[in-house]
Amino acid sequence: MSKYYLGIDLGGTEVKIAIVDGNGLIQEETSVANNKKLDHKKLIRKIIARVKALKYFQYVSGAGVGVAGDIDQVNGVVRFSPNLPLWKKVPLEKILKKHLSCPVVIDNDANVAALGAYFLDAKSKVNNLICVTLGTGVGGGIILDGKVYRGSTGSAGEIGHMPYDPEGLLCSCGSYGCIEKYIGASSLSEYAKNLIKAKGSKIITKLVNGSLNEVTPKVLAKAAEMGDVLAKTIWKEAGSKLGIVLAGVINLLNPEIIVISGGISNANNFLLKHIRDEIRKRAFKTSSSACKVIVSKYTHKLGVVGAALLAK
Amino acid sequence: MSKYYLGIDLGGTEVKIAIVDGNGLIQEETSVANNKKLDHKKLIRKIIARVKALKYFQYVSGAGVGVAGDIDQVNGVVRFSPNLPLWKKVPLEKILKKHLSCPVVIDNDANVAALGAYFLDAKSKVNNLICVTLGTGVGGGIILDGKVYRGSTGSAGEIGHMPYDPEGLLCSCGSYGCIEKYIGASSLSEYAKNLIKAKGSKIITKLVNGSLNEVTPKVLAKAAEMGDVLAKTIWKEAGSKLGIVLAGVINLLNPEIIVISGGISNANNFLLKHIRDEIRKRAFKTSSSACKVIVSKYTHKLGVVGAALLAK
Repeated sequence: MSKYYLGIDLGGTEVKIAIVDGNGLIQEETSVANNKKLDHKKLIRKIIARVKALKYFQYVSGAGVGVAGDIDQVNGVVRFSPNLPLWKKVPLEKILKKHLSCPVVIDNDANVAALGAYFLDAKSKVNNLICVTLGTGVGGGIILDGKVYRGSTGSAGEIGHMPYDPEGLLCSCGSYGCIEKYIGASSLSEYAKNLIKAKGSKIITKLVNGSLNEVTPKVLAKAAEMGDVLAKTIWKEAGSKLGIVLAGVINLLNPEIIVISGGISNANNFLLKHIRDEIRKRAFKTSSSACKVIVSKYTHKLGVVGAALLAK
Repeated sequence: MSKYYLGIDLGGTEVKIAIVDGNGLIQEETSVANNKKLDHKKLIRKIIARVKALKYFQYVSGAGVGVAGDIDQVNGVVRFSPNLPLWKKVPLEKILKKHLSCPVVIDNDANVAALGAYFLDAKSKVNNLICVTLGTGVGGGIILDGKVYRGSTGSAGEIGHMPYDPEGLLCSCGSYGCIEKYIGASSLSEYAKNLIKAKGSKIITKLVNGSLNEVTPKVLAKAAEMGDVLAKTIWKEAGSKLGIVLAGVINLLNPEIIVISGGISNANNFLLKHIRDEIRKRAFKTSSSACKVIVSKYTHKLGVVGAALLAK
């Protein structure tokens, strides 16, 4: 009998649940609605009930959970999560272990996504992989020799807080000019809004019915698809900025593959080319030639599959 | 009988040779003069004669060599070295193996220095270490789990070519604003020269007898020690710039220790404080608190000891 693993991707509006095989292929999946008002006891009760109803649950030999935020991976505690505002120091690993009667491991969403990308996008065929998740913030995960690299205190992988412009914008982390401050969804939308005010864009203005506060990366991707010059420029700039930071990461870590995932990566036609161009211009030739840069084909599954394979 | 290892640090003016024990303690050492006119056959002959005359040579169970430049670590070939201009694609590993009758491994000088720092400065007591070598250029080496991390094509560790200012100075690597272009010895000297011309410094001008082309990091360190304000400012700026890049490296890799080595690190009183200050201001708190930043106490031995321990 092959081994199966349970994955739980604890998002703010939806908890994705799946049982996968050792290669990350989903055998069975489901989900549970979440909202910010649910305390951890109620939500965990719902998750456990749903998990136990899965056909493959009886074959599960371990479970993994991915959570955004500050995770104490060693002790299995969710210290704080922006998606779960009522959760404070929840010993999630211990609680789940008791109810599921199998080993449980938890980790932050970026590490889990990187592991998902390693199994799904790279088919476990690389020695080292970097995953960049583009969402409200910019996260990162590093896989070395098939395992999540966590660093000395479990804090490694914060690509979003590498400097793009050291004299630049003040970031929420307290530093200046972190790349997240330029290409994270909220920063990018804000930047776009100001640019549209200054330069005008009929297409974007129409897409949001004149309400520029509604401009999101999704709108910008749609506008670029429709041929909007300003939207294309915004994506070009975003791709170049990320490419500059990734060129430095490539010179430092010489990875085999960089996988871009997350909501913003949907604009991949407009983003990826510029990321690659900038890397080619800036990184060492040997290292950049050896490094594939792709957009994940599995953005919406990386979390739940990566979580399951944490348990492997 | 304990095991002993032979280390060879192939510099442009001097080849350092040592036999060390498994902890990196030097049992016996010597050196051979080098110059740019020596072809590889002549130099290797001199090295082998000297090595064979060492008392401990009979106990050596492996040898390692560190060389600046483009090294094919897998095949043991020195493709190109700025210190050894007559060497082109020299199969150094094969040649030495034949004459020394023991396993031989070669690597670039920055990786070898990092390994030296791991054994000597960190006493093998950390899981991950980054070594930054400040010389004419800025090199870097990464040690994970006690081993050199090389990346997918052996090119990892190029900290000197991470961006400090993406819109900044054109670097010899073809990119813009690499940190090496600001704090590498030649760049720093050039920058200082122009600053002295513009702002004046009696102390520095006197130290070089009015010949500003003679300004080197050593002179700048001396001037700072003598209280020269301009020299202190130059070190402060250099430390801050390196600190900005290292803060990003800390957010990415969450290392336990960063060891600064190389010629310029001699100005450590003036440099280290500013590196640390900038890291504290910019890196994530958990990661920066967990990361010691020190200047190596063994700068001149790191290469030869690290080379020997490559063979371990």
